[in-house]
Amino acid sequence: MAELRLAPEWRTTQWFNTATPLSLETLRGRVVMVSAFQMLCPGCVSQGLPQAQRVAETFRLEDVQVVGLHTVFEHHDAMGPKSLEAFLHEYKIKFPVGVDAPDGVGIPQTMRAYDMRGTPTTLLIDRAGRLRRHAFGHLPDLQLGAELMALLGEAPAPSARQSDGSACTPGGCD
Amino acid sequence: MAELRLAPEWRTTQWFNTATPLSLETLRGRVVMVSAFQMLCPGCVSQGLPQAQRVAETFRLEDVQVVGLHTVFEHHDAMGPKSLEAFLHEYKIKFPVGVDAPDGVGIPQTMRAYDMRGTPTTLLIDRAGRLRRHAFGHLPDLQLGAELMALLGEAPAPSARQSDGSACTPGGCD
Amino acid sequence: MAELRLAPEWRTTQWFNTATPLSLETLRGRVVMVSAFQMLCPGCVSQGLPQAQRVAETFRLEDVQVVGLHTVFEHHDAMGPKSLEAFLHEYKIKFPVGVDAPDGVGIPQTMRAYDMRGTPTTLLIDRAGRLRRHAFGHLPDLQLGAELMALLGEAPAPSARQSDGSACTPGGCD
Amino acid sequence: MAELRLAPEWRTTQWFNTATPLSLETLRGRVVMVSAFQMLCPGCVSQGLPQAQRVAETFRLEDVQVVGLHTVFEHHDAMGPKSLEAFLHEYKIKFPVGVDAPDGVGIPQTMRAYDMRGTPTTLLIDRAGRLRRHAFGHLPDLQLGAELMALLGEAPAPSARQSDGSACTPGGCD
Repeated sequence: MAELRLAPEWRTTQWFNTATPLSLETLRGRVVMVSAFQMLCPGCVSQGLPQAQRVAETFRLEDVQVVGLHTVFEHHDAMGPKSLEAFLHEYKIKFPVGVDAPDGVGIPQTMRAYDMRGTPTTLLIDRAGRLRRHAFGHLPDLQLGAELMALLGEAPAPSARQSDGSACTPGGCD
Repeated sequence: MAELRLAPEWRTTQWFNTATPLSLETLRGRVVMVSAFQMLCPGCVSQGLPQAQRVAETFRLEDVQVVGLHTVFEHHDAMGPKSLEAFLHEYKIKFPVGVDAPDGVGIPQTMRAYDMRGTPTTLLIDRAGRLRRHAFGHLPDLQLGAELMALLGEAPAPSARQSDGSACTPGGCD
Repeated sequence: MAELRLAPEWRTTQWFNTATPLSLETLRGRVVMVSAFQMLCPGCVSQGLPQAQRVAETFRLEDVQVVGLHTVFEHHDAMGPKSLEAFLHEYKIKFPVGVDAPDGVGIPQTMRAYDMRGTPTTLLIDRAGRLRRHAFGHLPDLQLGAELMALLGEAPAPSARQSDGSACTPGGCD
Repeated sequence: MAELRLAPEWRTTQWFNTATPLSLETLRGRVVMVSAFQMLCPGCVSQGLPQAQRVAETFRLEDVQVVGLHTVFEHHDAMGPKSLEAFLHEYKIKFPVGVDAPDGVGIPQTMRAYDMRGTPTTLLIDRAGRLRRHAFGHLPDLQLGAELMALLGEAPAPSARQSDGSACTPGGCD
């Protein structure tokens, strides 16, 4: 596992359900589950987001941080921030949701950085900030629960912790 | 039943999935099922609209005309025509959908004319154009199927038929 | 429709949930829905019987009589009357259930008379006692509700009514 | 955890889906999930057993052993071995199922030893043979998956391993 790189930081333009923007770096130490969705994607509405809500209700926040990522790659005019805000309100979604930074009318920036195939996509990131699971489509609850617990059972990797904003080299510090 | 009045005509600003706007008057002779919804109403997305699609697939179009009515009474900015168009595309809704004419930021005009309590609401209108069922919330399929068939078994009321675009009086013709 | 014959009378050995055995003849005038099942048939337990219960709760008993028919054609030792009685109790099935008369270890007699392919099977019998629907597998609620209401809209056929226990011929009376 | 006692051994009269009877002792080293059920218990049929099947399909057999336990405490005549065998066949249940040893017409012996309240009941037993979870009713998949993985992450307790059939004391050997 030593060769696993850090998951790319999110690039977002706006956040809902949180006073301050979240970043993978500040969440280091927790397991992070990212539910990438589009508000008009039927599979996200019927499966992905309800599952993310169940995870948020089942695990303690200091153990698992659930984050929604609104990765709009089609119908951009239809899913702007006003629409998303109403959607989150009506569907009673309480966990933090970031808006993936647009890149014109195509694939947004974080979606591209993770090379996602579409929505819904689930990412699991370990305590040390490394991407450990990337699933397009539906992941059964039983398996997701087991994978989350396996990551919770790990201690943060020392090497990863060292790179956590405090690493210095002859060339300078991060 | 002679005393039943005609159902109020819809007041709409735009239609999807139809070349020409629909009206209750031109649909006289068919049973009409109206599914009033908002694209960001969870009960509409999970129950009302799928049921309307099942009705459209189960009955012949010349018997039962299913019509969606987008009755936006909250989050007006979030559910404009662009958003609705993308929603109908993503959810593969094929039956005609009219946009209820707004009345500022409150209850739209058709919703008010029918005194609807909210969404989803189902209206059943008989062959003669009279409102026979007004249900807020969920109507079980078994009961809905029975009610539709009961209306299909009725002959159009003669008086209603006369008003069907060909009625003339001393004051002139329709 | 004049050529439709009467549905074959049931051949049963025992009844549950009714003080006296039912027969198609005594039910003439009502629409009858028969839900043929086996207590160890998964599709009957998950779909057929719950649907029959919904019909019994949706329609008035004087309009539609729901009847269960236990058509055991395999595992005869496993589904005897003692087991069936406990099953009906645990699954809270309240409508009358008849036990199809066994024919050794194979297909029971009523199942054979109707040439059923398996379970679950739904039969709809009109007010005049004629078989109008024979469906193996699942029938959607919307369609079933419509078919039941179509049969309810029919008057009993006069010829059928005459055979209703009062018909006489040169050879004698029924 | 040192004070946790070993889970009581099962007392069974018959097994299905296994060539030889299973015992907790011989399963030491694996996590064991026991799904206690009655074949005529609706909650077992609709939730408990399908969940046990999902666990059996999701985890490797050398990690998690799923065991059904038929704990008949009512309708004893209706749920004898012949009926159970047909039930397991029709519901395609492939994991080993033991028949809890009857104690007359009341609560069977293993059910009593574990003080179960009813069916469905789920027991989780750790690699060292200790009861770690006893749940009456439904346990969500997400939580069950997490609990199973937490137990899988544990090493067998040395003290428990010593008691594994080879422990001797001045008073004699097990």
